[in-house]
Amino acid sequence: MLVVKKFGGSSVADRERIMNVARRCIEDYEKGNDVVVVLSAMGKTTDGLLEKAREITETPSKRELDMLLVTGEQVSVALMAMAFQSLGVQAVSLNAAQVAMRTTSAYGQAKLKRIDTERIRNELDARKIVVITGFQGINKYDDMTTLGRGGSDTTAVALAVALHADFCEIYTDVDGVYTADPRIVPNAKKLSEVSYDEMLEFASLGAKVLHNRSVEMAKRYGVKLVVLSSLTRAEGTIIKEKTSMEKMLVSGVAADKNTARISVLGVKDEPGIAFRLFNLLARYRINVDIIIQSVGRDNRKDISFTVARTDLQETMKIINDHLEMLTADSVSADDTVAKISIIGAGMTSNPGVAAKMFEALSGANINIKMIATSEIRITVLIDEEDASRAMRVVHDAFSLAD
Amino acid sequence: MLVVKKFGGSSVADRERIMNVARRCIEDYEKGNDVVVVLSAMGKTTDGLLEKAREITETPSKRELDMLLVTGEQVSVALMAMAFQSLGVQAVSLNAAQVAMRTTSAYGQAKLKRIDTERIRNELDARKIVVITGFQGINKYDDMTTLGRGGSDTTAVALAVALHADFCEIYTDVDGVYTADPRIVPNAKKLSEVSYDEMLEFASLGAKVLHNRSVEMAKRYGVKLVVLSSLTRAEGTIIKEKTSMEKMLVSGVAADKNTARISVLGVKDEPGIAFRLFNLLARYRINVDIIIQSVGRDNRKDISFTVARTDLQETMKIINDHLEMLTADSVSADDTVAKISIIGAGMTSNPGVAAKMFEALSGANINIKMIATSEIRITVLIDEEDASRAMRVVHDAFSLAD
Repeated sequence: MLVVKKFGGSSVADRERIMNVARRCIEDYEKGNDVVVVLSAMGKTTDGLLEKAREITETPSKRELDMLLVTGEQVSVALMAMAFQSLGVQAVSLNAAQVAMRTTSAYGQAKLKRIDTERIRNELDARKIVVITGFQGINKYDDMTTLGRGGSDTTAVALAVALHADFCEIYTDVDGVYTADPRIVPNAKKLSEVSYDEMLEFASLGAKVLHNRSVEMAKRYGVKLVVLSSLTRAEGTIIKEKTSMEKMLVSGVAADKNTARISVLGVKDEPGIAFRLFNLLARYRINVDIIIQSVGRDNRKDISFTVARTDLQETMKIINDHLEMLTADSVSADDTVAKISIIGAGMTSNPGVAAKMFEALSGANINIKMIATSEIRITVLIDEEDASRAMRVVHDAFSLAD
Repeated sequence: MLVVKKFGGSSVADRERIMNVARRCIEDYEKGNDVVVVLSAMGKTTDGLLEKAREITETPSKRELDMLLVTGEQVSVALMAMAFQSLGVQAVSLNAAQVAMRTTSAYGQAKLKRIDTERIRNELDARKIVVITGFQGINKYDDMTTLGRGGSDTTAVALAVALHADFCEIYTDVDGVYTADPRIVPNAKKLSEVSYDEMLEFASLGAKVLHNRSVEMAKRYGVKLVVLSSLTRAEGTIIKEKTSMEKMLVSGVAADKNTARISVLGVKDEPGIAFRLFNLLARYRINVDIIIQSVGRDNRKDISFTVARTDLQETMKIINDHLEMLTADSVSADDTVAKISIIGAGMTSNPGVAAKMFEALSGANINIKMIATSEIRITVLIDEEDASRAMRVVHDAFSLAD
């Protein structure tokens, strides 16, 4: 078997944790498996490097910022290789240039294009554990790039694809995917498996276990992902194409507070207005989530939608700068909202699911402001202050703790 | 003109110093010169990385140690490129792999083999300041290597050779080469120029301005070296092949306390014994300096020599382990000694120089334990406690302050 194991920054934050990770990997290695380890930068290293850059200039060039940041993972992999060697196991660290991990040229948000596996294969054939820098690559100029958010997970999955790995294990602070955030819903239950699509919904809805990019890639190439804890021995959650037949209708509940509602008021009720609006936002790379359009009256209507709260200021500015083109009277915003979603591949064929969710919220006197549904999720927008309570009543309504 | 400028770790230790270095380099750039900057790791970065490695294992593999250490210079060059850009000057940082700076495979003490200059030339042609990591290279496996002590100076000189630079400027804490260490000899004078050979002697005798490797390379390829301070605007010392005709007989006085005397006592007075001894030490890579062999008596003789004090323990162990092979009775050591040397290309044809030095020491009641001479230096071994006094009286005897 060939296993790719990815450990995040907190899993390698100090000597003790590095040795702990090394010992766990060696267990697998000693079963005869080929082991590839992907690491992030230690603890707060990346923040420290960003701070150093900020001392020099508030607007460092992205190329130089990447050149700076990639040192973080390189420190991790060198120390981890030393840790393996100190435990008597052959190991070798490789950075993105050595692999080589080719990416697009977009510094700070590069996308992986292809991975040369020859060096890795040779090292594995020599029975070494291969420790590889996550989050980074090299572009066609042989310059260092970084992959942006969730980059190390993506590196791990991409290596699993390129090496035809049997498993890609993502080690995190939590020991798997839960029916809801256990800090908010104390009786939340760990899921033994979820489908790629469900995981994508969990990820996009604020469950910070895995980044969407890595799940999408895993889905596309059928990589078996396992999410588990680097600190405990608990069994994790397996993410794969199909989950077992007897699985639950609803897999879990997620809350996302990084959202804000924007309403563009009084636009002309004629074709093409919505296109103009969302085309405009797309040009500025603003991701829009739930959209509602009011029924037109007196040839006027309102269009409301949600964006990430971090995009709110910019979105408001863009729309205000284009009110005329949008034929709008005004624009308003509300950033005290939250999205609550239920996720489950089983619910598509069960029309009663949405009703049950709305009933639970209504019973708790929680007002629903917007609704959006997809194949495998139902999302409602509510007041932010109701978010935790909403999660608990919905979690209970679907008996997810049982 | 093309100028290579090398700055050590203390010159880039913090934001203020980085900006200071950037501004100085821009002055040259704005005269129309092509500027290549070579940097060491910031301040105590390398020590910090070594400490991290030591926390994992006392005996890290050299390959992984190099993989770890090279991140230090990479941080420096990325920040420096940002500094240039923040001052409105185009710049690009390159690590050893990007250059590519090819070395032998010996991790921790690699030697530069060749430098590809295409990337650097292209960046210079685009009127960028090119900022390159000192101290490091890549070997034939595409693994990172480090060049060992004095590595960044060597990188700078090698780049000056490869790029046919007009000057290679080495910026340090001091503003040039002095007739003696000014902390010990207050009226020591800065030399405006010295020859490569004199500089080699100064370097090997404890003047920590430049490492021998870089001077040797500069001499071999005729690179004009300039030593100057990154903190002041004082004119530095030029190091070149021939110095001007009217130069002084003696250029300076140097003291080296990193020395210890070892005496191998009572070896057989027969051919091959000295060879056995020094061949043995060479096998263990122990550098031997001054050697004295006593005149044989009763078919027995003593061999004394000096080694770096840091090699004393190991040397004693090696000799004690081989007393029989060396036909020796015993071995003794003295680590309370120091070497005092006078250096000067002009003194080879002046037999009175040595006498004047001995006279000055004798006049100060300082006992000479061993003597060694070369083309351009005379070295005596004396008690360590006499070292500073000896420097001053010799400095005065040759009127070096005038």
